[in-house]
Amino acid sequence: MKNTNRKIVLASRPSGQPTTDNFRLEDSDIPSPQRGEILLRTIYLSLDPYMRGRMNDAESYAEPVKLDDVMVGGTVAQVEQSQHDDFAVGDWVLSYSGWQDYAISNGEGLINLGKNPTQPSYALGVMGMPGFTAYMGLMDIGQPKKGDTLVVAATTGAVGSIVGQIGKLMGCKVIGIAGGSEKCQYAIDNLGFDHCIDHKAPDFAEQLAATAENGIDIYFENVGGKVFDAVLPLLNTGARIPVCGLISQYNATSLPDGPDRMSSLVATLLIKRIKMQGFIIFDDYGHRYNEFSQAMQEWLSQGKIQYKEHVIEGLDKAPEAFIGLLNGENFGKLIIHTNQAN
Amino acid sequence: MKNTNRKIVLASRPSGQPTTDNFRLEDSDIPSPQRGEILLRTIYLSLDPYMRGRMNDAESYAEPVKLDDVMVGGTVAQVEQSQHDDFAVGDWVLSYSGWQDYAISNGEGLINLGKNPTQPSYALGVMGMPGFTAYMGLMDIGQPKKGDTLVVAATTGAVGSIVGQIGKLMGCKVIGIAGGSEKCQYAIDNLGFDHCIDHKAPDFAEQLAATAENGIDIYFENVGGKVFDAVLPLLNTGARIPVCGLISQYNATSLPDGPDRMSSLVATLLIKRIKMQGFIIFDDYGHRYNEFSQAMQEWLSQGKIQYKEHVIEGLDKAPEAFIGLLNGENFGKLIIHTNQAN
Repeated sequence: MKNTNRKIVLASRPSGQPTTDNFRLEDSDIPSPQRGEILLRTIYLSLDPYMRGRMNDAESYAEPVKLDDVMVGGTVAQVEQSQHDDFAVGDWVLSYSGWQDYAISNGEGLINLGKNPTQPSYALGVMGMPGFTAYMGLMDIGQPKKGDTLVVAATTGAVGSIVGQIGKLMGCKVIGIAGGSEKCQYAIDNLGFDHCIDHKAPDFAEQLAATAENGIDIYFENVGGKVFDAVLPLLNTGARIPVCGLISQYNATSLPDGPDRMSSLVATLLIKRIKMQGFIIFDDYGHRYNEFSQAMQEWLSQGKIQYKEHVIEGLDKAPEAFIGLLNGENFGKLIIHTNQAN
Repeated sequence: MKNTNRKIVLASRPSGQPTTDNFRLEDSDIPSPQRGEILLRTIYLSLDPYMRGRMNDAESYAEPVKLDDVMVGGTVAQVEQSQHDDFAVGDWVLSYSGWQDYAISNGEGLINLGKNPTQPSYALGVMGMPGFTAYMGLMDIGQPKKGDTLVVAATTGAVGSIVGQIGKLMGCKVIGIAGGSEKCQYAIDNLGFDHCIDHKAPDFAEQLAATAENGIDIYFENVGGKVFDAVLPLLNTGARIPVCGLISQYNATSLPDGPDRMSSLVATLLIKRIKMQGFIIFDDYGHRYNEFSQAMQEWLSQGKIQYKEHVIEGLDKAPEAFIGLLNGENFGKLIIHTNQAN
């Protein structure tokens, strides 16, 4: 056991793209658990796009991180000390300890992963929030049918990669969108997508239109911006648009110039009878976690879902890794390996 | 029986607001039914906002009316001559004869209303497309719950008046929006709305915010424009927005000036987990007509739903009545009484 708890706090609020100056690495004492508490030691920290929203002091679906507070985040941790009857030293848990080595918990909201989970970090990805988001957004809002054309952006990311693979299992024609030919090739070769288009190509919108030759039935929205602009005219009557993120917009500091297309979007929803629905996974679908978990376990065990992690060593690397995530530099689910397991 | 069939055709396509010059009244011969056909004589013609879209030569959910063709429209007609086994002379039918006195039909798509319907014109309103639109949009997409705040515009119109009254039956707090104090008073006194706000008031948005003190759970969208702008910041987490029309936008010839709020709308849908869904009633819900019909019949017979018609005499008045409809000049469901019943 180390003597200090390293933690990364929000030093200042970004305007636009975050920089490493917005974060500060601090050392503090390791706290001691009281009766009914446990001390957790972070092994893996998940980095996810939603964290950008928490850095703003603006109304959103969750409280912003306060200045000088530890950055929030999902973690896989081991119980280091226990004064709690339900947790023993050495247990692995899925927790929400944030960007730090150690945290105290009273057990509330923790999921006990047992003594020897086979892939503990999966709880932050394919078996956790991103996988659950992919599953419910596609299955419940997207309502995939055999033969539908499904378009998903951020194709090699934690959510997009799962959305597309589930879409294939449901019999959809799956068109991925990713940044760069390497990611596109991976989506086709490893994830089994039918097509993948590089959004950095100058004729990206034309390529998408040519590839989605029968229009688009489901667009899984996680990026926004120019991808949405290219998708919009291709949507079919009765299309469904689950909205789980808008990563291309998170650093925006002002609205784009006009004309104002808001009414035009609503008119498209009307004329084409489209459903567009935002969702926050645990708020909307927490009660259906078991359904997801069983389906995903089975697909993984049968080799029907491939899952790639992008693991970076060291808590101190979290700020620059997170900034890279917002720029699409990760390749697979971004995870920080903070400490060696016991 | 007259000797000529009066018909109103599309003379030219409007740019922006239609004028009477876009229509032309023509006389033609009355057609004769062949074997398997009937001759229909129009008694009531329904005028509805969707017809504005049919006047454009643009992609929409239905074919545009061709130049020099009869304007389309739902009608209640009587069978004048019959060569069809399922229809007898004198039968009333719900048909789609358009803006004319006589039409031939092979029976396809007609609904036989029998010899002596009590309120035949209701088939164009509360028991027809507008009532069905109100019912399914609110019940299926809006999912009203007791205590929800429901906002509906065009409050005294064919759809809005029904939406609000069903909302009351479901236990919602109903806030109407209408043009002018007379319509607002009617909504409160006769339709039983809790509140009604005049959208012509200079402080309309402030009044709406003050009245929807607990935010808005359901916004039934049929107008767009400044009403939607005022509603948007008041939407609650988990709000539902059925979109059945955008009457304020139908005459628009270009997009409004910027900034471009499209991405901002999508971000709101995400952050507040909102469902926004366009629908075209018979395409999406045709299979649930009986459910609607039974519920509405019962409410009407129990006096739980009030229904007001705005009846204008004479087919030749249809163009100016339709232009007035787009400007909100009607007060109740707009119907043209084209001919006396036999």
